[in-house]
Amino acid sequence: MKAITINSLKQANPIIDMPTPELQPGNVLIKVHATAVNHVDLAWVSGKRKPDDTILGLELAGEVVDAGDSNVKVGQRVAALVDKGGYAEFASVPADRLIPLPDDVSYAKGASIPESYLTAYQTLFLIGNLQENQTVLIHAGASGVGTAAIQLAKQIKHATVITTSSTEKTAICKANGADYAIDYKQQDFEAEVDKITNHRGVDLVLDFIGADYFNANVNSVATDGQLVLIGDLSGSIVNNVNLRYIMMKRMSITGTLLSTRSPEYKAKLTAEFVAKTKALFADQTLEPTVGAEFDLQDALSAQKYMHDQKNVGKIVLKV
Amino acid sequence: MKAITINSLKQANPIIDMPTPELQPGNVLIKVHATAVNHVDLAWVSGKRKPDDTILGLELAGEVVDAGDSNVKVGQRVAALVDKGGYAEFASVPADRLIPLPDDVSYAKGASIPESYLTAYQTLFLIGNLQENQTVLIHAGASGVGTAAIQLAKQIKHATVITTSSTEKTAICKANGADYAIDYKQQDFEAEVDKITNHRGVDLVLDFIGADYFNANVNSVATDGQLVLIGDLSGSIVNNVNLRYIMMKRMSITGTLLSTRSPEYKAKLTAEFVAKTKALFADQTLEPTVGAEFDLQDALSAQKYMHDQKNVGKIVLKV
Repeated sequence: MKAITINSLKQANPIIDMPTPELQPGNVLIKVHATAVNHVDLAWVSGKRKPDDTILGLELAGEVVDAGDSNVKVGQRVAALVDKGGYAEFASVPADRLIPLPDDVSYAKGASIPESYLTAYQTLFLIGNLQENQTVLIHAGASGVGTAAIQLAKQIKHATVITTSSTEKTAICKANGADYAIDYKQQDFEAEVDKITNHRGVDLVLDFIGADYFNANVNSVATDGQLVLIGDLSGSIVNNVNLRYIMMKRMSITGTLLSTRSPEYKAKLTAEFVAKTKALFADQTLEPTVGAEFDLQDALSAQKYMHDQKNVGKIVLKV
Repeated sequence: MKAITINSLKQANPIIDMPTPELQPGNVLIKVHATAVNHVDLAWVSGKRKPDDTILGLELAGEVVDAGDSNVKVGQRVAALVDKGGYAEFASVPADRLIPLPDDVSYAKGASIPESYLTAYQTLFLIGNLQENQTVLIHAGASGVGTAAIQLAKQIKHATVITTSSTEKTAICKANGADYAIDYKQQDFEAEVDKITNHRGVDLVLDFIGADYFNANVNSVATDGQLVLIGDLSGSIVNNVNLRYIMMKRMSITGTLLSTRSPEYKAKLTAEFVAKTKALFADQTLEPTVGAEFDLQDALSAQKYMHDQKNVGKIVLKV
């Protein structure tokens, strides 16, 4: 089958021939129609993981062609979070990771669901414990996780959603449902949040930016609020952290990563997510944001596009 | 009635005459027999609060002399967490804050229960979510909250308890049930915890020390573990905080203070605490550590004793 590995990506023709995966017990075989690019892919390629024949790709959408020992129907259109193997023609996926795709959701949109929506769902509700009508600050609001989080917070908890993004991406945040779209290039988000919340602060912050935003995030959280760290795009090392503020606010700071969680956790998260969102994807209340599509063979260009922060929502690879 | 206020404490004779408190609806009047010293008392006196006629003292033990509109029995021996007013002959206390004292628990021991045990209970179980047989690191293990936390973690969750303390206080930690008592003057606690837990780290850290311990605390937490910040005795400002570690470990850092919580929260916490610990105080499985007793008129000396870190467990004032 066609596939792109960490080793092959930088070749003139990155698509190489690999054996079709053998079906493990509990897995189904999927004919992949689309996958999506994640920051982890870029990290693996840039040396965070030893270059080898690992097939890239942490999420995919396609159709079930062999149900194995499961009771999934052959032909079922699905998306799934995978540990690797999305940049390929076929993938073997645990049956308990499948997200059934409604008829009107394309494979490109389907491939944009797993990482972004599961991460957003987990951080907003399971970790962040967002309650009805609370206020949430979502950084990188026009990103894949950002757009998913805006939609989930609005549609499931009727939250007041404040986002940050670059000037040109504020419209995307608004289109996805943000009540306030702060332009971080022109505005100081801490001052804006203080104004919007009438000095109260927000109940929850979802942050991908890390070091540069950390202290302003702490200052932006309300009493008994929470900061969830999902990324550190600006760096990891923070100075002048004030523990007194953290105590006075009785706030929590929680770091999380989805990819390193156990298979059991991912299965449980997927089941809860499907139960809560299936109808909302079917009637397009939730709609993945596909910002760009590339052919699989142009995966390196797609990764460069993400590296250069050109993307809005997800970057999809058509397989 | 006799009382000591923020204003009166530094007088040659600090005990002044104040009106006996009027009974508010829902409150009972207590004849106070003992109160205990807390760091907040020192902070108030040193100027963190405007000097006025506020009566010092955040906890007390005594007997109910007027039950007001409650169904508490006159003569009932009780302890209670109060917002102020412990350094006095009488105190008006919400009936839903009362901790009934078993016959064998003296007033001195009773006055040592509210702040320490409620704080330890809240941070170990309600915030820290400590599970059966997990491992907890308790800093300042010989302090009031430290000794209470060792006992509660051992007796209620059979936890493996690791403490830090100065050389001369390690024996107190052991006597209260600690499995490992690290001497912070001779040993590097991060290295010791790494050794004791076989590189796994601890599920929970209770910290009162703050800045000086923060990064070593983060390094000492296991995957999915938690650091609860209850104090900042060494300072509040931390540098070189590594957010990547926090994310990789999927850990939480939670700040908390008991004194600023709402009356409803304190009542609910007290009710749960009493239900879970009543029998354990009655049979002396839980036993408050009274390290020193002073007469009320010597309150300033008692505060100096705490300031100089001479205390083990609680410092009690006899009223």
